[in-house]
Amino acid sequence: MKNKKSQQQTESFYAIKWNAGILTLLDQRKLPNEVIYHDYTSALDIADAIKKMVVRGAPAIGIAAAYAVVLAARSAYQDSPDNWRDNIEEALDILVAARPTAVNLDWAVSKMREKFKTIESNPETTLLDLAIKIHNDDIAANHEMGRLGTKLIRPNSNVITHCNAGALATGGYGTALGVIRTAYQQGLLEKVYVSETRPWHQGTRLTSWELTQDNIPVSLLIDSAISNLMQIEKISWLIVGADRIAANGDIANKIGTYSHIVSAKHHNVKVMVVAPSSTIDMKIDSGKKIPIEERPAKEVTHFYETKMFPNSTKILNPAFDVTPASMIDYIVTEKGVICDPDVKKLLTIFG
Amino acid sequence: MKNKKSQQQTESFYAIKWNAGILTLLDQRKLPNEVIYHDYTSALDIADAIKKMVVRGAPAIGIAAAYAVVLAARSAYQDSPDNWRDNIEEALDILVAARPTAVNLDWAVSKMREKFKTIESNPETTLLDLAIKIHNDDIAANHEMGRLGTKLIRPNSNVITHCNAGALATGGYGTALGVIRTAYQQGLLEKVYVSETRPWHQGTRLTSWELTQDNIPVSLLIDSAISNLMQIEKISWLIVGADRIAANGDIANKIGTYSHIVSAKHHNVKVMVVAPSSTIDMKIDSGKKIPIEERPAKEVTHFYETKMFPNSTKILNPAFDVTPASMIDYIVTEKGVICDPDVKKLLTIFG
Repeated sequence: MKNKKSQQQTESFYAIKWNAGILTLLDQRKLPNEVIYHDYTSALDIADAIKKMVVRGAPAIGIAAAYAVVLAARSAYQDSPDNWRDNIEEALDILVAARPTAVNLDWAVSKMREKFKTIESNPETTLLDLAIKIHNDDIAANHEMGRLGTKLIRPNSNVITHCNAGALATGGYGTALGVIRTAYQQGLLEKVYVSETRPWHQGTRLTSWELTQDNIPVSLLIDSAISNLMQIEKISWLIVGADRIAANGDIANKIGTYSHIVSAKHHNVKVMVVAPSSTIDMKIDSGKKIPIEERPAKEVTHFYETKMFPNSTKILNPAFDVTPASMIDYIVTEKGVICDPDVKKLLTIFG
Repeated sequence: MKNKKSQQQTESFYAIKWNAGILTLLDQRKLPNEVIYHDYTSALDIADAIKKMVVRGAPAIGIAAAYAVVLAARSAYQDSPDNWRDNIEEALDILVAARPTAVNLDWAVSKMREKFKTIESNPETTLLDLAIKIHNDDIAANHEMGRLGTKLIRPNSNVITHCNAGALATGGYGTALGVIRTAYQQGLLEKVYVSETRPWHQGTRLTSWELTQDNIPVSLLIDSAISNLMQIEKISWLIVGADRIAANGDIANKIGTYSHIVSAKHHNVKVMVVAPSSTIDMKIDSGKKIPIEERPAKEVTHFYETKMFPNSTKILNPAFDVTPASMIDYIVTEKGVICDPDVKKLLTIFG
C-alpha cells in the first residue's frame, strides 16, 4: 500500500496520523506525563481506543473512525473480495456505538459508507482518499472557524475555555482552541483561563499542555472556581466546543459546560460555541433528545489506580451536559456564524 | 493532669478528642482509605496540623485551636509561672494565622485569651474547662441548627451539599450535615447529593464517608455536574456551611459554593447556609473584605504524589469564594434563622 500524502499539520505534535497503511494515535490518557503513540491496523482496536479515550474529542473520533473504516474494508476485501461490504457492517456498528454523544462518529462512518456503492474493485485507495479528505477538511474548517470566531473578539479580552477543543480533539488546530490560537496570534487576548475539567482533567492534562506547546500562556483553575473568576475578573468570553448541536441550536458538550454557561449568563460573559458542520445534527430537534453517555464511576473515584472513595456510595458520572440555545450567544461553524441560534437560523445554513 | 469529662459524641467516629492532657485529631488527609489518629501536646504542632488540613472545617479548627491554647499555656507555665501569658503570644499568633478565611480560629483564640486575666495560678484547668465548653457548645449549637434548619424542609426533598460541613468539620454532628442528619432521621429527604469538592475532595473523601458511617445513602457527582443535576432533577435545597459570614450576610465558604449558588438561583433551588454564631464576623461589613486563602498549587496539579500537569502553567487555587447575601435564602444559626439576610437582620441577632 503506497504512502499517502500526509495531512497538513500546524502544531508541534499530532494526535492522529495515517502513514503507510497504519493509523497512529497519540495516547491522550497518558498526557502530559508521557507522550506515547500507538499504531493501529484493525478497526475494532480503533473502536476500543475511542471507547477508552486514547483518542477523544468529537471531530477527532470522527476522523479516527473514517480511517478505521479503511482498515475494516482492507481486511474484509483481503478475506473476501465479493462480500467486503456486508462483512464490515458489524465492525462499523461497533465503531459508531463506541461513544454515543458526539454525532461526528456516526457522521464520518455514514460518509464512508455512502462511498461503498461507487466502488467496484479493491476499496482501499478510494476509501483512504475520502478519509484523508475528511481529515484535511476538518483542519481547514478549524482554520476557517478560527478566523470567523476571532472577528467577534475585541482587543484585551480575557477568555475561559473548558475541556479540550483543540488540535488534540480534532484533525488539527482545534475548534474553541482554534479561535483562541488565532485571536492570540492577533494579539487580542490578555489572559487565557482553562478549567481543569473533571473527572478526566482534559483542561489540566490536554489543553494546558497543548497551548504550552504553542507558547500560549494559560492559567488553570478547578471547574468550580470559574464562577468565582467571573465574579472577580473581567471576562469577555467563554469559548467551548460541542459534541452535538441539535436543530434548534441546543448543544451537548463536556460535562461542566452548562455549569460554566449558567455562570457566564449571570456575569454577562458572552458564550461562543465553536464546532464544525459535522457536529450539527439536524435530525434531532432538541438537545433533550441527545443521548448522554454515562462513563465508568472509576473516573470519579480513582486517580490512575489510587482509590479515594468508600465503596458504598452511588456515583453519577454523566460525560456531557446540554445547554439550551437561548443561553448561547454565538455558534461558529466553518459555514458561518450564527448569533442567538434558533431552528430557523440553523435551517438557513444547514437545512 | 486529671482526665476531663469527654465531649458528647453522636457519631460512630470523632474528629477531635481531648483526653488525659492530649489532643487527638483524626487525620482527614488520609480518609477514607485510612482512619488514622494523631496525638498532639504542642500548640505549634496543632497550628501545623490546621495549616496542613489534618483537621479542617471552620468550627473544628476553632475547637482545635482552643485546645492548642491550653497546651501552649501549660508548657509556658511550666517554663515560667510568672510570664506564661506573654510567652504564648507568639504561638497564638501562629495559630490564628494558620488559616486566614475561617473566623472561628480567631474567635476561639480570642475567647481563650479573654480568660487569661481572670487566672491567678496554674492556667491549665481553667483554660481546659473553657476549651471543653467551646467544644460542647459547638456540638449543642449543631443540634439546635439541625432542628431549626429541618423545620424549613418539606417531605420528599432532594438536597445537595458541597464540601464537608459535618461532624468532621465541627465539634460533632455538623452544620449543613447536622440539618441533613436531622431531616433524614425525620424521613424528609428523598435523595442526598454530594459534590466532590475539588481540589481536596472533601465531598468524595469526607462527606460521603461520614454519611455512610451513619447509613445515610448519598450520590456523588463532580462539582461541574451540579448545574446539570439541577436542570434534570427536582432539587429542593442546596445546604452548605460557611467559613465566615460578614455583617451584611455575605458568606465565604469552600470554593465552588458560589458556583453552586449561581446555579441554584438559575434553577429555583433554595439556598440554606448553616453556621454557628462563631462564624459571624460583625467587624467586617461586606464579604469583599474577607481574606481568601490561596492554597498550594500542588492540590490541583497532583493527586497524592502523582503529578498530572506540565510545569509551565500558572495555577490559581483560591480555597474559598464569596457569595453575596442577596443570593442566600436562609442563614441558620443556633441563635435563630434569618430569611433573606441583610445587615439589619444580622444586627438584630448578633449586634
